[in-house]
Amino acid sequence: MTIRVTIAGARGRMGQEAVHTIMKNPDMELVSVLDYKNVGKTLEDTNLFPPSYGAPIFTDLTELYEKTKPDVLVDLTSPESVYKHTKKALELNIRPVVGTTGFTDEELEELTAIAKTTGIGCIIAPNFAVGAVLMMKFAQQAAKYLPDVEIIEMHHDQKLDAPSGTGMKTANMISKIRPVHEQGHPKEKETIEGARGADYDGMRIHSVRLPGLVAHQQVLLGGEGQLLTIRHDSFNRGSFMSGIVLSVKTVMNLKELVYGLEHIID
Amino acid sequence: MTIRVTIAGARGRMGQEAVHTIMKNPDMELVSVLDYKNVGKTLEDTNLFPPSYGAPIFTDLTELYEKTKPDVLVDLTSPESVYKHTKKALELNIRPVVGTTGFTDEELEELTAIAKTTGIGCIIAPNFAVGAVLMMKFAQQAAKYLPDVEIIEMHHDQKLDAPSGTGMKTANMISKIRPVHEQGHPKEKETIEGARGADYDGMRIHSVRLPGLVAHQQVLLGGEGQLLTIRHDSFNRGSFMSGIVLSVKTVMNLKELVYGLEHIID
Amino acid sequence: MTIRVTIAGARGRMGQEAVHTIMKNPDMELVSVLDYKNVGKTLEDTNLFPPSYGAPIFTDLTELYEKTKPDVLVDLTSPESVYKHTKKALELNIRPVVGTTGFTDEELEELTAIAKTTGIGCIIAPNFAVGAVLMMKFAQQAAKYLPDVEIIEMHHDQKLDAPSGTGMKTANMISKIRPVHEQGHPKEKETIEGARGADYDGMRIHSVRLPGLVAHQQVLLGGEGQLLTIRHDSFNRGSFMSGIVLSVKTVMNLKELVYGLEHIID
Amino acid sequence: MTIRVTIAGARGRMGQEAVHTIMKNPDMELVSVLDYKNVGKTLEDTNLFPPSYGAPIFTDLTELYEKTKPDVLVDLTSPESVYKHTKKALELNIRPVVGTTGFTDEELEELTAIAKTTGIGCIIAPNFAVGAVLMMKFAQQAAKYLPDVEIIEMHHDQKLDAPSGTGMKTANMISKIRPVHEQGHPKEKETIEGARGADYDGMRIHSVRLPGLVAHQQVLLGGEGQLLTIRHDSFNRGSFMSGIVLSVKTVMNLKELVYGLEHIID
Repeated sequence: MTIRVTIAGARGRMGQEAVHTIMKNPDMELVSVLDYKNVGKTLEDTNLFPPSYGAPIFTDLTELYEKTKPDVLVDLTSPESVYKHTKKALELNIRPVVGTTGFTDEELEELTAIAKTTGIGCIIAPNFAVGAVLMMKFAQQAAKYLPDVEIIEMHHDQKLDAPSGTGMKTANMISKIRPVHEQGHPKEKETIEGARGADYDGMRIHSVRLPGLVAHQQVLLGGEGQLLTIRHDSFNRGSFMSGIVLSVKTVMNLKELVYGLEHIID
Repeated sequence: MTIRVTIAGARGRMGQEAVHTIMKNPDMELVSVLDYKNVGKTLEDTNLFPPSYGAPIFTDLTELYEKTKPDVLVDLTSPESVYKHTKKALELNIRPVVGTTGFTDEELEELTAIAKTTGIGCIIAPNFAVGAVLMMKFAQQAAKYLPDVEIIEMHHDQKLDAPSGTGMKTANMISKIRPVHEQGHPKEKETIEGARGADYDGMRIHSVRLPGLVAHQQVLLGGEGQLLTIRHDSFNRGSFMSGIVLSVKTVMNLKELVYGLEHIID
Repeated sequence: MTIRVTIAGARGRMGQEAVHTIMKNPDMELVSVLDYKNVGKTLEDTNLFPPSYGAPIFTDLTELYEKTKPDVLVDLTSPESVYKHTKKALELNIRPVVGTTGFTDEELEELTAIAKTTGIGCIIAPNFAVGAVLMMKFAQQAAKYLPDVEIIEMHHDQKLDAPSGTGMKTANMISKIRPVHEQGHPKEKETIEGARGADYDGMRIHSVRLPGLVAHQQVLLGGEGQLLTIRHDSFNRGSFMSGIVLSVKTVMNLKELVYGLEHIID
Repeated sequence: MTIRVTIAGARGRMGQEAVHTIMKNPDMELVSVLDYKNVGKTLEDTNLFPPSYGAPIFTDLTELYEKTKPDVLVDLTSPESVYKHTKKALELNIRPVVGTTGFTDEELEELTAIAKTTGIGCIIAPNFAVGAVLMMKFAQQAAKYLPDVEIIEMHHDQKLDAPSGTGMKTANMISKIRPVHEQGHPKEKETIEGARGADYDGMRIHSVRLPGLVAHQQVLLGGEGQLLTIRHDSFNRGSFMSGIVLSVKTVMNLKELVYGLEHIID
């Protein structure tokens, strides 16, 4: 059975890739797109896609639903609009697949409650890169057996914050299952400040910033005589597409809201 | 409660390390060792250990059991003797922890049956390096989502066989869960034979042999825009000690035979 | 002094990047472009560049030279036209910087002779990625001291030939300075054919092909107790721009033809 | 012609390896050893070597020289005695090869002057691992073309100081040839202090400390669209042997004192 998909944010960078991904997937059909302004009758009119991309554009989700009956809404818009879209979609019986971190705790609780009541599946994923999610999951599992952990995350030199969100998330996931202990010798000393990196519950996170890099992270777990390294390299936006496809397929069988791709990957 | 441990093969390279490991572990006591010849009254007499290593040496397992009542037998001897030891230990109510690949299928079936009947736990592990086992497990899990896999295993240049046993085992574990498909372009061609490595069910295995290397393997899983790498470095024999400790602790709660560390790691 | 640059092949993928690179470089001025067909008066008319890109387009190199007096011609066109362009440029007193492998030996000899006679500098570079050239150079130097070498090159799975051109070039450069000897144990055997990779004068080259990968290579040099790894990752076409800039600057001080970036890097 | 070698510090860990290395080398002969106390007539008497190791032991360098006429003295003793040994050796016409960092500036100046006057070659090397020296050299050369550099050094968790000596030396060598500039975005901010590592003239050094690790370092050089990584792994003490052999051979052709292996490697 073909899954009927609609996309919000189709004109954005991530959205354009998602459009191509859905169009090429034999198990899915792009039945429509949701846009906040009236940019044409179909995707073709936007001049961003080839003539064969005929999905009609709607500015109202209710009308979109009545005319095109999507099973799933892939929402790649800004934090400002996702909450409204998601809530409306759940009420209309469309399963939301949302890629953003922009929900408040209250919004998440409300959406979780609605999904539970209505029994409509919903996936919210701060990170759609399946490989990155696997890296975090594996690092967490491995830390049970190899509790000495350091994280090296490497990004292009235009990134402002250090450590990266993924680095922090990884350390946080690991800290939940391993006993707190400081890495390195208790008497170690930095002859230049910062050498030993950022301390997150005893784990050290090192942030490398260089031109040319995209988004990379390795988790190193050391034990007597051995080292286990789990590394993810994200070379371009395409890395998110596998997670979108996986989410669209998985949400069809869910009856509640799931937050984080790690909960649909086993 | 302290676990009472006896070791067979204490004078071998791996055995010596295991003796030190058990001696240093606060949860364990080395109550005796089993040797095929009478080399002295205690470990101290072998001149391989410090004077404080006073575990008595026995050449007969039954006598050893009656005098020192071990909970667990760690067997690091040769393939010739492990079968006999393991069977006898199960009959004597000692839980065997065995590090070898040298059992025939018939022997394994028989030992499995005995363990089941008697309800005595038993762990047989071809590879005690916890990190290596985690690598294989994670690679298998990840291949569900990223089915394009290549393996690079790297060893010292005195190794005779290529690919390595761990490389083959990893590919075998992955092949059980991923659809068979050939890596690379269908029209790719090798201008020098062998460039694309060994073909194992469509996955490629590359064997690097260089002086200086010890035992290293990385599993590369590629997807659109991303790469997931799971790597294990074994720097010395110490890498097996964590698996021995884990096995000694786990076997206390088992009531059957488990083959492979991957089944006691979750 | 600003270097006056003209570009042939400005509408191609590499050409477009080169145009941006020259435009942004404070030491250079893009004075014109050479095109094989009349696509407009200036770059702006091609709709590929912003309105401020006003370099005039010529279809004839002689006319281009008379009107815009370039110091350097950056040629990023196809192998069919580069020979003609380069010869003409040398005659017109324009220094060619050419990025292609498409010259015959006879053509190279002729161009070398012309450059020598006229004293006009010329750089022909099969690979403009400075990092890749450094990798090859360093690997060659290191092999003098660590003569056991293996090469792992990794590319996207649409690449047809294995080993890659860079892999072959690297092995060739190393083979010129190190004694021929086979890697690995003389009695090693492949239980699956191809495991030990392609044999190039005794060095092994391993070609990994996975979706997601771009263009990566590592050279591993092993010695007793140690491993030296020299790795280059090319994430996108931008990696060639540093070599173009370096060549444009260097060619100003040359009085002969140089083949290969490795000869202008020390 | 066989090089006649004597060793000071033969009973130490490094010394024992050096004895084996010299004994196995077909171009060298171990003619004697220097010891501070009388431990026997020959190496064999120390019980540290096989019976075939018959080099006589001397406690006085003058007597050693008269009786065994060595060409080279390999000195692997403590900082306290190397100065005395080296000076005496130069006077006796024995070429010193010394592996220590323990000279004062005054001592170095004096030894340099003696070597120059007498025309006796002398090599003092703080690091005998050829691969590590090549890594530093290459990193320095590459930074001319790719001036954005970060260093990740990784050691076992018993190491007290961070960054490591090799990390500091590498940064120092690079800083001599590249323009000072800070890595990363000028507005970057650490949400956890230390994330961006130690700042050495604008380069960042990251120190990883984990059980299992030995001594590893990678230098990362980023440029538009590319990354060059130069990595050295030292797995055990054997990594220093290649540098000792190289030094013994090279010192035969020197007529002055050379400080640092990087100056005899080209």
